[in-house]
Amino acid sequence: MKLVELIPNFSDGRNGKIINLLSNCVKSFPDAKLLDTEMDYNHNRSVITVVCTIDSVVELAFNLIKIAAENIDMDIQKGLHPRFGATDIMPLVPLEDTTMDECIKLSREIGMMVGNELKIPVFMYERSATVPERKNLENIRNKSFQIEELRSVIGTGKYIPDYGPSVIGKAGSTIIGARELLIAYNIYLNTDDIKIGRKIASAIRAKDGGFAYVKSLAFKIPGKNVVQISMNIVNYRKNPLYRIFETVKSEAAGYGISIIKSEFIGMVPQEAMAQSFNHYLMSNIENTGILVYRQSKI
Amino acid sequence: MKLVELIPNFSDGRNGKIINLLSNCVKSFPDAKLLDTEMDYNHNRSVITVVCTIDSVVELAFNLIKIAAENIDMDIQKGLHPRFGATDIMPLVPLEDTTMDECIKLSREIGMMVGNELKIPVFMYERSATVPERKNLENIRNKSFQIEELRSVIGTGKYIPDYGPSVIGKAGSTIIGARELLIAYNIYLNTDDIKIGRKIASAIRAKDGGFAYVKSLAFKIPGKNVVQISMNIVNYRKNPLYRIFETVKSEAAGYGISIIKSEFIGMVPQEAMAQSFNHYLMSNIENTGILVYRQSKI
Repeated sequence: MKLVELIPNFSDGRNGKIINLLSNCVKSFPDAKLLDTEMDYNHNRSVITVVCTIDSVVELAFNLIKIAAENIDMDIQKGLHPRFGATDIMPLVPLEDTTMDECIKLSREIGMMVGNELKIPVFMYERSATVPERKNLENIRNKSFQIEELRSVIGTGKYIPDYGPSVIGKAGSTIIGARELLIAYNIYLNTDDIKIGRKIASAIRAKDGGFAYVKSLAFKIPGKNVVQISMNIVNYRKNPLYRIFETVKSEAAGYGISIIKSEFIGMVPQEAMAQSFNHYLMSNIENTGILVYRQSKI
Repeated sequence: MKLVELIPNFSDGRNGKIINLLSNCVKSFPDAKLLDTEMDYNHNRSVITVVCTIDSVVELAFNLIKIAAENIDMDIQKGLHPRFGATDIMPLVPLEDTTMDECIKLSREIGMMVGNELKIPVFMYERSATVPERKNLENIRNKSFQIEELRSVIGTGKYIPDYGPSVIGKAGSTIIGARELLIAYNIYLNTDDIKIGRKIASAIRAKDGGFAYVKSLAFKIPGKNVVQISMNIVNYRKNPLYRIFETVKSEAAGYGISIIKSEFIGMVPQEAMAQSFNHYLMSNIENTGILVYRQSKI
Protein backbone atom coordinates (compact mmCIF):
# COMPACT_ATOMS: atom_id res chain seq x y z
CA MET A 1 0.00 0.00 0.00
CA LYS A 2 1.20 3.51 -0.74
CA LEU A 3 1.55 5.09 2.69
CA VAL A 4 3.14 8.30 3.89
CA GLU A 5 4.05 9.24 7.41
CA LEU A 6 3.57 12.85 8.51
CA ILE A 7 5.25 14.07 11.68
CA PRO A 8 4.30 17.74 11.98
CA ASN A 9 5.79 19.72 14.86
CA PHE A 10 3.57 22.49 16.20
CA SER A 11 4.73 25.37 18.39
CA ASP A 12 2.34 24.71 21.23
CA GLY A 13 2.82 22.17 23.98
CA ARG A 14 0.59 23.72 26.62
CA ASN A 15 -2.89 24.14 25.21
CA GLY A 16 -4.66 20.78 25.00
CA LYS A 17 -7.44 22.30 22.89
CA ILE A 18 -5.09 22.84 19.96
CA ILE A 19 -3.82 19.28 20.00
CA ASN A 20 -7.43 18.18 20.16
CA LEU A 21 -8.36 20.16 17.07
CA LEU A 22 -5.39 18.72 15.20
CA SER A 23 -6.20 15.16 16.32
CA ASN A 24 -9.81 15.51 15.28
CA CYS A 25 -8.74 16.74 11.89
CA VAL A 26 -6.65 13.57 11.40
CA LYS A 27 -9.51 11.39 12.58
CA SER A 28 -11.85 12.96 10.05
CA PHE A 29 -9.79 11.31 7.28
CA PRO A 30 -10.88 7.67 6.95
CA ASP A 31 -7.60 6.58 5.39
CA ALA A 32 -5.39 8.30 7.98
CA LYS A 33 -4.35 6.88 11.33
CA LEU A 34 -3.22 9.00 14.26
CA LEU A 35 -0.41 6.99 15.79
CA ASP A 36 0.86 9.28 18.44
CA THR A 37 0.59 12.75 19.93
CA GLU A 38 3.11 14.22 22.34
CA MET A 39 2.99 17.58 24.08
CA ASP A 40 6.10 19.02 25.70
CA TYR A 41 5.41 21.85 28.13
CA ASN A 42 8.98 23.14 28.46
CA HIS A 43 9.66 23.03 24.76
CA ASN A 44 6.13 24.40 24.20
CA ARG A 45 5.89 22.08 21.27
CA SER A 46 3.73 19.16 20.13
CA VAL A 47 4.51 16.40 17.72
CA ILE A 48 1.87 14.27 16.10
CA THR A 49 2.53 11.15 14.10
CA VAL A 50 0.15 10.19 11.33
CA VAL A 51 0.18 7.51 8.67
CA CYS A 52 -2.11 8.00 5.71
CA THR A 53 -2.50 6.82 2.16
CA ILE A 54 -0.78 8.83 -0.50
CA ASP A 55 -4.09 10.22 -1.82
CA SER A 56 -4.88 12.17 1.36
CA VAL A 57 -1.46 13.53 2.21
CA VAL A 58 -1.77 16.97 0.64
CA GLU A 59 -5.23 17.77 1.96
CA LEU A 60 -4.48 16.47 5.44
CA ALA A 61 -1.16 18.31 5.77
CA PHE A 62 -2.71 21.53 4.48
CA ASN A 63 -5.62 21.31 6.93
CA LEU A 64 -3.29 20.73 9.89
CA ILE A 65 -1.14 23.72 8.95
CA LYS A 66 -4.29 25.82 8.60
CA ILE A 67 -5.57 24.83 12.06
CA ALA A 68 -2.20 25.59 13.65
CA ALA A 69 -2.06 28.97 11.89
CA GLU A 70 -5.51 29.86 13.21
CA ASN A 71 -4.78 28.82 16.79
CA ILE A 72 -1.14 29.52 17.58
CA ASP A 73 0.11 33.09 17.82
CA MET A 74 3.83 33.24 17.14
CA ASP A 75 3.94 36.87 18.22
CA ILE A 76 3.68 35.72 21.84
CA GLN A 77 4.78 32.06 21.73
CA LYS A 78 7.85 31.21 23.84
CA GLY A 79 9.54 27.90 24.57
CA LEU A 80 12.83 26.10 24.87
CA HIS A 81 12.78 24.63 21.39
CA PRO A 82 13.93 26.64 18.34
CA ARG A 83 11.00 27.47 16.05
CA PHE A 84 10.01 29.37 12.95
CA GLY A 85 6.24 29.06 13.00
CA ALA A 86 2.92 27.67 14.28
CA THR A 87 3.54 24.58 12.20
CA ASP A 88 7.27 24.63 12.62
CA ILE A 89 8.15 21.65 10.47
CA MET A 90 6.09 19.26 8.34
CA PRO A 91 8.20 16.24 7.40
CA LEU A 92 6.90 13.59 4.99
CA VAL A 93 8.36 10.07 5.13
CA PRO A 94 7.74 7.43 2.46
CA LEU A 95 6.49 4.12 3.91
CA GLU A 96 5.82 0.76 2.27
CA ASP A 97 5.25 1.21 -1.48
CA THR A 98 5.67 4.99 -1.61
CA THR A 99 8.89 6.34 -3.10
CA MET A 100 10.99 9.28 -1.96
CA ASP A 101 10.33 11.01 -5.27
CA GLU A 102 6.59 10.80 -4.71
CA CYS A 103 7.04 12.34 -1.25
CA ILE A 104 9.14 15.17 -2.65
CA LYS A 105 6.43 15.93 -5.20
CA LEU A 106 3.71 15.87 -2.53
CA SER A 107 5.72 18.13 -0.22
CA ARG A 108 6.00 20.72 -3.00
CA GLU A 109 2.26 20.61 -3.60
CA ILE A 110 1.70 21.24 0.12
CA GLY A 111 4.25 24.05 0.15
CA MET A 112 2.63 25.76 -2.80
CA MET A 113 -0.87 25.54 -1.31
CA VAL A 114 0.32 26.81 2.08
CA GLY A 115 2.18 29.70 0.49
CA ASN A 116 -0.60 30.69 -1.91
CA GLU A 117 -3.70 30.10 0.16
CA LEU A 118 -2.53 30.67 3.75
CA LYS A 119 0.06 33.33 2.86
CA ILE A 120 2.63 31.62 5.04
CA PRO A 121 6.26 31.73 3.87
CA VAL A 122 7.45 28.18 3.25
CA PHE A 123 10.99 26.82 3.17
CA MET A 124 11.54 23.40 1.63
CA TYR A 125 14.12 21.26 3.41
CA GLU A 126 15.72 17.82 3.47
CA ARG A 127 15.13 15.91 0.23
CA SER A 128 12.76 18.62 -1.00
CA ALA A 129 15.32 21.42 -0.61
CA THR A 130 15.69 23.62 -3.69
CA VAL A 131 19.20 24.69 -2.72
CA PRO A 132 21.79 22.49 -0.99
CA GLU A 133 22.11 24.84 2.02
CA ARG A 134 18.50 24.18 2.93
CA LYS A 135 18.86 20.41 3.10
CA ASN A 136 19.80 20.53 6.75
CA LEU A 137 17.25 22.01 9.16
CA GLU A 138 20.01 23.49 11.30
CA ASN A 139 21.14 25.66 8.42
CA ILE A 140 17.64 27.11 8.16
CA ARG A 141 16.64 27.64 11.78
CA ASN A 142 18.58 26.91 14.96
CA LYS A 143 18.97 28.14 18.52
CA SER A 144 20.48 31.43 17.40
CA PHE A 145 18.35 31.92 14.32
CA GLN A 146 14.64 31.65 15.01
CA ILE A 147 11.46 33.47 14.01
CA GLU A 148 12.73 36.65 15.70
CA GLU A 149 15.84 36.73 13.53
CA LEU A 150 13.94 35.64 10.42
CA ARG A 151 11.54 38.59 10.59
CA SER A 152 14.15 41.16 9.66
CA VAL A 153 15.88 39.25 6.87
CA ILE A 154 13.12 37.27 5.17
CA GLY A 155 13.08 37.87 1.45
CA THR A 156 16.79 38.68 1.33
CA GLY A 157 19.77 36.52 0.34
CA LYS A 158 19.35 32.96 1.59
CA TYR A 159 16.00 33.71 3.24
CA ILE A 160 13.86 34.01 0.14
CA PRO A 161 11.05 31.51 0.79
CA ASP A 162 10.28 28.74 -1.71
CA TYR A 163 6.58 29.55 -1.57
CA GLY A 164 4.42 32.29 -0.11
CA PRO A 165 5.11 35.91 0.73
CA SER A 166 8.30 37.28 2.28
CA VAL A 167 6.27 38.49 5.22
CA ILE A 168 6.04 36.92 8.69
CA GLY A 169 2.57 36.98 10.20
CA LYS A 170 1.20 35.47 13.41
CA ALA A 171 1.62 31.95 11.97
CA GLY A 172 5.32 32.50 11.35
CA SER A 173 7.01 30.44 8.68
CA THR A 174 6.77 26.72 7.95
CA ILE A 175 9.48 24.29 6.91
CA ILE A 176 8.26 21.40 4.74
CA GLY A 177 10.05 18.50 3.17
CA ALA A 178 10.39 14.81 2.43
CA ARG A 179 12.96 12.92 4.41
CA GLU A 180 14.09 9.46 5.36
CA LEU A 181 12.61 7.84 8.42
CA LEU A 182 14.09 9.31 11.59
CA ILE A 183 14.00 8.28 15.23
CA ALA A 184 13.69 11.07 17.81
CA TYR A 185 15.29 9.83 21.01
CA ASN A 186 16.06 11.50 24.34
CA ILE A 187 18.28 10.21 27.13
CA TYR A 188 18.11 11.78 30.60
CA LEU A 189 21.15 12.02 32.90
CA ASN A 190 21.21 12.55 36.67
CA THR A 191 23.27 15.75 36.59
CA ASP A 192 22.47 19.44 36.59
CA ASP A 193 25.74 20.20 34.83
CA ILE A 194 24.84 21.21 31.29
CA LYS A 195 28.55 21.29 30.40
CA ILE A 196 28.76 17.53 30.87
CA GLY A 197 25.59 17.16 28.81
CA ARG A 198 27.13 19.20 26.01
CA LYS A 199 30.29 17.10 26.07
CA ILE A 200 28.28 13.89 25.78
CA ALA A 201 26.04 15.29 23.04
CA SER A 202 29.17 16.33 21.19
CA ALA A 203 30.83 12.93 21.62
CA ILE A 204 28.04 11.09 19.84
CA ARG A 205 27.04 13.45 17.03
CA ALA A 206 28.19 13.30 13.44
CA LYS A 207 29.15 16.97 13.31
CA ASP A 208 31.82 16.54 15.97
CA GLY A 209 33.14 13.17 14.84
CA GLY A 210 30.62 10.88 16.54
CA PHE A 211 28.13 8.52 14.91
CA ALA A 212 27.56 9.44 11.27
CA TYR A 213 23.74 9.44 11.49
CA VAL A 214 23.23 11.07 14.88
CA LYS A 215 22.35 14.70 15.54
CA SER A 216 22.27 15.70 19.20
CA LEU A 217 21.85 18.59 21.59
CA ALA A 218 21.98 18.86 25.37
CA PHE A 219 19.24 20.62 27.33
CA LYS A 220 18.98 21.46 31.00
CA ILE A 221 15.48 20.53 32.18
CA PRO A 222 14.19 23.54 34.16
CA GLY A 223 13.38 22.88 37.81
CA LYS A 224 14.97 19.46 37.76
CA ASN A 225 18.56 18.43 38.30
CA VAL A 226 18.49 16.61 35.05
CA VAL A 227 20.14 17.03 31.66
CA GLN A 228 18.54 15.75 28.48
CA ILE A 229 20.52 14.51 25.51
CA SER A 230 18.11 15.05 22.64
CA MET A 231 18.88 13.09 19.48
CA ASN A 232 17.73 12.50 15.95
CA ILE A 233 18.89 9.22 14.49
CA VAL A 234 18.57 9.49 10.74
CA ASN A 235 19.71 5.96 9.89
CA TYR A 236 18.97 3.39 12.60
CA ARG A 237 20.29 0.57 10.45
CA LYS A 238 23.78 2.07 10.45
CA ASN A 239 23.60 3.56 13.97
CA PRO A 240 21.45 1.16 16.02
CA LEU A 241 19.67 2.40 19.14
CA TYR A 242 21.43 0.06 21.54
CA ARG A 243 24.84 1.29 20.39
CA ILE A 244 23.93 4.91 20.97
CA PHE A 245 22.42 4.09 24.36
CA GLU A 246 25.50 2.13 25.44
CA THR A 247 27.83 4.89 24.28
CA VAL A 248 25.94 7.56 26.22
CA LYS A 249 25.91 5.24 29.25
CA SER A 250 29.65 4.75 29.05
CA GLU A 251 30.37 8.46 28.52
CA ALA A 252 28.13 9.35 31.46
CA ALA A 253 29.90 6.83 33.69
CA GLY A 254 33.16 8.59 32.87
CA TYR A 255 31.76 11.69 34.58
CA GLY A 256 30.42 9.70 37.53
CA ILE A 257 26.82 10.12 36.43
CA SER A 258 24.28 7.76 34.94
CA ILE A 259 21.19 7.43 32.75
CA ILE A 260 17.86 7.88 34.52
CA LYS A 261 15.64 6.97 31.59
CA SER A 262 15.26 7.37 27.86
CA GLU A 263 12.27 8.16 25.70
CA PHE A 264 11.20 8.04 22.10
CA ILE A 265 9.27 10.92 20.60
CA GLY A 266 6.84 9.53 18.08
CA MET A 267 7.18 6.05 16.71
CA VAL A 268 9.96 3.51 16.50
CA PRO A 269 10.01 1.14 13.53
CA GLN A 270 9.55 -2.49 14.50
CA GLU A 271 12.82 -3.28 12.76
CA ALA A 272 14.77 -0.88 15.01
CA MET A 273 13.16 -2.42 18.06
CA ALA A 274 13.98 -5.95 16.91
CA GLN A 275 17.58 -4.90 16.25
CA SER A 276 18.18 -3.79 19.86
CA PHE A 277 16.09 -6.63 21.30
CA ASN A 278 18.26 -9.12 19.40
CA HIS A 279 21.43 -7.41 20.57
CA TYR A 280 20.61 -7.65 24.26
CA LEU A 281 19.06 -11.12 24.14
CA MET A 282 21.66 -12.38 21.64
CA SER A 283 18.71 -13.62 19.65
CA ASN A 284 17.37 -14.03 16.16
CA ILE A 285 13.99 -12.33 15.74
CA GLU A 286 13.44 -11.31 12.16
CA ASN A 287 11.53 -8.21 11.29
CA THR A 288 9.02 -9.50 8.83
CA GLY A 289 7.11 -6.26 9.00
CA ILE A 290 3.92 -8.08 8.20
CA LEU A 291 2.57 -8.79 11.60
CA VAL A 292 0.60 -7.04 14.26
CA TYR A 293 0.78 -9.58 16.98
CA ARG A 294 -1.17 -8.38 19.93
CA GLN A 295 -2.16 -10.68 22.72
CA SER A 296 -5.81 -10.72 23.75
CA LYS A 297 -6.40 -8.61 26.84
CA ILE A 298 -8.95 -11.07 28.15
CA MET B 1 -10.08 -7.24 15.11
CA LYS B 2 -11.08 -10.69 16.32
CA LEU B 3 -8.08 -12.86 15.51
CA VAL B 4 -7.10 -16.38 16.48
CA GLU B 5 -3.71 -18.01 16.22
CA LEU B 6 -3.52 -21.67 15.24
CA ILE B 7 -0.30 -23.61 15.81
CA PRO B 8 -1.10 -27.13 14.59
CA ASN B 9 1.60 -29.82 14.95
CA PHE B 10 1.57 -32.49 12.24
CA SER B 11 3.31 -35.87 12.46
CA ASP B 12 5.40 -35.44 9.35
CA GLY B 13 8.64 -33.54 9.07
CA ARG B 14 10.10 -35.28 6.04
CA ASN B 15 7.66 -34.99 3.16
CA GLY B 16 7.69 -31.45 1.79
CA LYS B 17 4.58 -32.20 -0.30
CA ILE B 18 2.42 -32.47 2.81
CA ILE B 19 3.61 -29.15 4.25
CA ASN B 20 2.94 -27.69 0.84
CA LEU B 21 -0.65 -28.92 0.79
CA LEU B 22 -1.19 -27.53 4.28
CA SER B 23 0.39 -24.17 3.41
CA ASN B 24 -1.72 -23.89 0.26
CA CYS B 25 -4.82 -24.62 2.27
CA VAL B 26 -4.00 -21.68 4.59
CA LYS B 27 -3.28 -19.43 1.62
CA SER B 28 -6.66 -20.25 0.08
CA PHE B 29 -8.31 -18.40 2.99
CA PRO B 30 -8.19 -14.66 2.27
CA ASP B 31 -8.47 -13.72 5.94
CA ALA B 32 -5.75 -16.11 7.13
CA LYS B 33 -2.02 -15.44 7.17
CA LEU B 34 0.65 -18.14 7.25
CA LEU B 35 3.31 -16.77 9.59
CA ASP B 36 5.71 -19.62 9.90
CA THR B 37 6.32 -23.25 8.97
CA GLU B 38 8.97 -25.44 10.57
CA MET B 39 9.82 -29.04 9.61
CA ASP B 40 11.92 -31.21 11.91
CA TYR B 41 13.34 -34.34 10.27
CA ASN B 42 14.45 -36.12 13.46
CA HIS B 43 11.22 -35.42 15.28
CA ASN B 44 9.35 -36.19 12.01
CA ARG B 45 7.05 -33.34 12.86
CA SER B 46 6.00 -29.99 11.38
CA VAL B 47 4.59 -26.93 13.08
CA ILE B 48 2.78 -24.21 11.21
CA THR B 49 1.75 -20.87 12.66
CA VAL B 50 -1.34 -19.18 11.28
CA VAL B 51 -3.31 -16.09 12.25
CA CYS B 52 -6.86 -15.81 10.96
CA THR B 53 -10.06 -13.99 11.74
CA ILE B 54 -12.46 -15.68 14.09
CA ASP B 55 -14.95 -16.42 11.30
CA SER B 56 -12.60 -18.77 9.46
CA VAL B 57 -11.05 -20.65 12.36
CA VAL B 58 -13.32 -23.68 12.36
CA GLU B 59 -13.29 -24.28 8.62
CA LEU B 60 -9.54 -23.72 8.33
CA ALA B 61 -8.65 -25.97 11.28
CA PHE B 62 -10.99 -28.67 10.01
CA ASN B 63 -9.52 -28.55 6.50
CA LEU B 64 -5.97 -28.80 7.82
CA ILE B 65 -6.85 -31.81 9.96
CA LYS B 66 -8.56 -33.41 6.95
CA ILE B 67 -5.51 -32.90 4.71
CA ALA B 68 -3.19 -34.37 7.36
CA ALA B 69 -5.55 -37.34 7.82
CA GLU B 70 -5.54 -38.04 4.08
CA ASN B 71 -1.76 -37.77 3.70
CA ILE B 72 -0.10 -39.06 6.87
CA ASP B 73 -0.35 -42.75 7.74
CA MET B 74 0.09 -43.24 11.47
CA ASP B 75 0.31 -47.01 10.98
CA ILE B 76 3.84 -46.52 9.66
CA GLN B 77 4.88 -43.08 10.98
CA LYS B 78 7.95 -43.03 13.25
CA GLY B 79 9.88 -40.14 14.83
CA LEU B 80 11.55 -38.87 17.99
CA HIS B 81 8.63 -36.77 19.13
CA PRO B 82 5.70 -38.27 21.06
CA ARG B 83 2.50 -38.28 18.95
CA PHE B 84 -1.10 -39.42 18.90
CA GLY B 85 -2.07 -38.66 15.32
CA ALA B 86 -1.56 -37.12 11.88
CA THR B 87 -2.62 -33.79 13.32
CA ASP B 88 -1.13 -34.37 16.72
CA ILE B 89 -2.21 -31.16 18.44
CA MET B 90 -4.28 -28.18 17.30
CA PRO B 91 -3.88 -25.32 19.80
CA LEU B 92 -5.98 -22.15 19.45
CA VAL B 93 -4.74 -18.89 20.98
CA PRO B 94 -6.94 -15.78 21.34
CA LEU B 95 -5.35 -12.64 19.84
CA GLU B 96 -6.46 -9.00 19.84
CA ASP B 97 -10.21 -8.76 20.49
CA THR B 98 -10.90 -12.47 20.75
CA THR B 99 -11.57 -13.87 24.21
CA MET B 100 -10.45 -17.18 25.70
CA ASP B 101 -14.09 -18.23 26.03
CA GLU B 102 -14.61 -17.71 22.30
CA CYS B 103 -11.56 -19.85 21.57
CA ILE B 104 -12.80 -22.60 23.86
CA LYS B 105 -16.14 -22.60 22.04
CA LEU B 106 -14.43 -22.69 18.64
CA SER B 107 -12.16 -25.53 19.70
CA ARG B 108 -15.21 -27.60 20.69
CA GLU B 109 -16.85 -26.93 17.32
CA ILE B 110 -13.69 -28.13 15.58
CA GLY B 111 -13.52 -31.18 17.84
CA MET B 112 -17.13 -32.12 17.12
CA MET B 113 -16.72 -31.75 13.33
CA VAL B 114 -13.49 -33.75 13.31
CA GLY B 115 -15.07 -36.48 15.41
CA ASN B 116 -18.32 -36.68 13.47
CA GLU B 117 -17.19 -36.12 9.90
CA LEU B 118 -13.63 -37.48 9.84
CA LYS B 119 -14.27 -40.22 12.43
CA ILE B 120 -11.11 -39.26 14.29
CA PRO B 121 -11.15 -39.57 18.10
CA VAL B 122 -10.58 -36.14 19.65
CA PHE B 123 -9.29 -35.24 23.10
CA MET B 124 -9.81 -31.68 24.32
CA TYR B 125 -6.91 -30.21 26.34
CA GLU B 126 -5.64 -27.04 28.04
CA ARG B 127 -8.45 -24.51 28.62
CA SER B 128 -10.86 -26.69 26.60
CA ALA B 129 -10.33 -29.78 28.74
CA THR B 130 -13.56 -31.42 29.92
CA VAL B 131 -11.84 -33.06 32.90
CA PRO B 132 -8.97 -31.52 34.92
CA GLU B 133 -6.58 -34.40 34.13
CA ARG B 134 -6.68 -33.52 30.46
CA LYS B 135 -5.60 -29.89 30.97
CA ASN B 136 -1.93 -30.77 30.72
CA LEU B 137 -0.77 -32.35 27.46
CA GLU B 138 1.75 -34.51 29.28
CA ASN B 139 -1.05 -36.24 31.16
CA ILE B 140 -2.68 -37.21 27.85
CA ARG B 141 0.25 -38.30 25.70
CA ASN B 142 3.93 -38.43 26.52
CA LYS B 143 7.08 -40.38 25.67
CA SER B 144 5.74 -43.55 27.29
CA PHE B 145 2.12 -43.21 26.21
CA GLN B 146 1.72 -42.63 22.50
CA ILE B 147 -0.57 -43.83 19.69
CA GLU B 148 0.67 -47.40 20.15
CA GLU B 149 -0.44 -47.46 23.79
CA LEU B 150 -3.65 -45.57 23.06
CA ARG B 151 -4.88 -48.19 20.54
CA SER B 152 -5.53 -50.83 23.14
CA VAL B 153 -7.17 -48.67 25.80
CA ILE B 154 -9.13 -46.08 23.83
CA GLY B 155 -12.76 -45.96 24.94
CA THR B 156 -11.93 -47.16 28.44
CA GLY B 157 -11.44 -45.22 31.71
CA LYS B 158 -9.62 -41.96 31.15
CA TYR B 159 -9.26 -42.60 27.42
CA ILE B 160 -12.85 -42.03 26.34
CA PRO B 161 -12.52 -39.38 23.62
CA ASP B 162 -14.46 -36.11 23.86
CA TYR B 163 -15.62 -36.49 20.26
CA GLY B 164 -15.52 -39.16 17.56
CA PRO B 165 -15.33 -42.93 17.74
CA SER B 166 -13.27 -44.96 20.18
CA VAL B 167 -11.40 -46.45 17.24
CA ILE B 168 -7.91 -45.51 16.03
CA GLY B 169 -7.57 -45.43 12.24
CA LYS B 170 -4.66 -44.39 10.01
CA ALA B 171 -5.09 -40.74 11.10
CA GLY B 172 -4.67 -41.62 14.76
CA SER B 173 -6.17 -39.30 17.35
CA THR B 174 -6.09 -35.50 17.60
CA ILE B 175 -5.71 -33.26 20.65
CA ILE B 176 -7.46 -29.89 20.36
CA GLY B 177 -7.76 -26.98 22.74
CA ALA B 178 -7.58 -23.28 23.50
CA ARG B 179 -4.58 -22.04 25.42
CA GLU B 180 -2.78 -18.86 26.40
CA LEU B 181 -0.07 -17.48 24.17
CA LEU B 182 3.27 -19.19 24.72
CA ILE B 183 6.82 -18.25 23.79
CA ALA B 184 9.23 -21.05 22.89
CA TYR B 185 12.72 -19.84 23.75
CA ASN B 186 16.13 -21.56 23.74
CA ILE B 187 19.38 -20.30 25.26
CA TYR B 188 22.72 -21.91 24.32
CA LEU B 189 25.64 -22.16 26.75
CA ASN B 190 29.32 -22.73 25.97
CA THR B 191 29.67 -25.91 27.99
CA ASP B 192 29.45 -29.62 27.23
CA ASP B 193 28.49 -30.35 30.83
CA ILE B 194 24.83 -31.33 30.76
CA LYS B 195 24.82 -31.39 34.57
CA ILE B 196 25.36 -27.63 34.65
CA GLY B 197 22.63 -27.26 32.05
CA ARG B 198 20.23 -29.26 34.18
CA LYS B 199 21.01 -27.17 37.25
CA ILE B 200 20.32 -23.97 35.36
CA ALA B 201 17.13 -25.34 33.79
CA SER B 202 16.03 -26.36 37.27
CA ALA B 203 16.87 -22.96 38.77
CA ILE B 204 14.52 -21.11 36.46
CA ARG B 205 11.53 -23.44 36.13
CA ALA B 206 8.28 -23.25 38.08
CA LYS B 207 8.34 -26.92 39.03
CA ASP B 208 11.56 -26.51 41.03
CA GLY B 209 10.79 -23.13 42.58
CA GLY B 210 11.91 -20.87 39.74
CA PHE B 211 9.79 -18.50 37.67
CA ALA B 212 6.10 -19.37 37.94
CA TYR B 213 5.44 -19.35 34.18
CA VAL B 214 8.58 -21.05 32.90
CA LYS B 215 8.93 -24.69 31.89
CA SER B 216 12.47 -25.72 30.99
CA LEU B 217 14.70 -28.64 30.06
CA ALA B 218 18.40 -28.95 29.32
CA PHE B 219 19.67 -30.76 26.22
CA LYS B 220 23.16 -31.61 25.07
CA ILE B 221 23.44 -30.69 21.39
CA PRO B 222 24.90 -33.76 19.60
CA GLY B 223 28.32 -33.19 18.05
CA LYS B 224 28.76 -29.76 19.61
CA ASN B 225 30.20 -28.70 22.95
CA VAL B 226 27.04 -26.79 23.67
CA VAL B 227 24.14 -27.18 26.06
CA GLN B 228 20.67 -25.88 25.22
CA ILE B 229 18.25 -24.59 27.84
CA SER B 230 14.89 -25.12 26.13
CA MET B 231 12.00 -23.12 27.58
CA ASN B 232 8.31 -22.49 27.26
CA ILE B 233 7.22 -19.18 28.73
CA VAL B 234 3.49 -19.35 29.30
CA ASN B 235 3.04 -15.81 30.63
CA TYR B 236 5.58 -13.32 29.34
CA ARG B 237 3.87 -10.44 31.12
CA LYS B 238 4.62 -11.98 34.51
CA ASN B 239 7.94 -13.54 33.49
CA PRO B 240 9.48 -11.16 30.93
CA LEU B 241 12.07 -12.41 28.48
CA TYR B 242 14.86 -10.10 29.67
CA ARG B 243 14.48 -11.34 33.24
CA ILE B 244 14.78 -14.97 32.20
CA PHE B 245 17.74 -14.15 29.96
CA GLU B 246 19.53 -12.21 32.73
CA THR B 247 18.89 -14.97 35.25
CA VAL B 248 20.31 -17.64 32.96
CA LYS B 249 23.28 -15.36 32.24
CA SER B 250 23.94 -14.86 35.94
CA GLU B 251 23.55 -18.56 36.77
CA ALA B 252 25.90 -19.48 33.92
CA ALA B 253 28.51 -16.96 35.12
CA GLY B 254 28.42 -18.71 38.50
CA TYR B 255 29.73 -21.82 36.73
CA GLY B 256 32.32 -19.87 34.75
CA ILE B 257 30.40 -20.28 31.49
CA SER B 258 28.40 -17.90 29.35
CA ILE B 259 25.58 -17.58 26.84
CA ILE B 260 26.52 -18.03 23.18
CA LYS B 261 23.17 -17.09 21.68
CA SER B 262 19.45 -17.44 22.15
CA GLU B 263 16.64 -18.22 19.72
CA PHE B 264 12.89 -18.05 19.48
CA ILE B 265 10.92 -20.88 17.91
CA GLY B 266 7.92 -19.47 16.10
CA MET B 267 6.69 -15.99 16.81
CA VAL B 268 7.25 -13.44 19.58
CA PRO B 269 4.47 -10.97 20.36
CA GLN B 270 5.39 -7.35 19.73
CA GLU B 271 4.47 -6.56 23.33
CA ALA B 272 7.03 -9.04 24.68
CA MET B 273 9.65 -7.52 22.43
CA ALA B 274 8.78 -3.97 23.52
CA GLN B 275 8.95 -5.05 27.17
CA SER B 276 12.57 -6.21 26.92
CA PHE B 277 13.54 -3.36 24.60
CA ASN B 278 12.22 -0.88 27.17
CA HIS B 279 14.04 -2.63 29.98
CA TYR B 280 17.44 -2.42 28.33
CA LEU B 281 17.04 1.06 26.90
CA MET B 282 15.23 2.33 30.04
CA SER B 283 12.62 3.61 27.63
CA ASN B 284 8.92 4.02 27.14
CA ILE B 285 7.73 2.42 23.92
CA GLU B 286 4.11 1.47 24.19
CA ASN B 287 2.77 -1.53 22.41
CA THR B 288 -0.06 0.01 20.49
CA GLY B 289 -0.35 -3.06 18.36
CA ILE B 290 -1.96 -1.07 15.61
CA LEU B 291 0.95 -0.47 13.38
CA VAL B 292 2.78 -2.21 10.64
CA TYR B 293 5.65 0.14 10.34
CA ARG B 294 7.69 -0.88 7.40
CA GLN B 295 10.26 1.46 5.98
CA SER B 296 10.05 2.11 2.27
CA LYS B 297 12.67 0.11 0.39
CA ILE B 298 13.15 2.90 -2.11
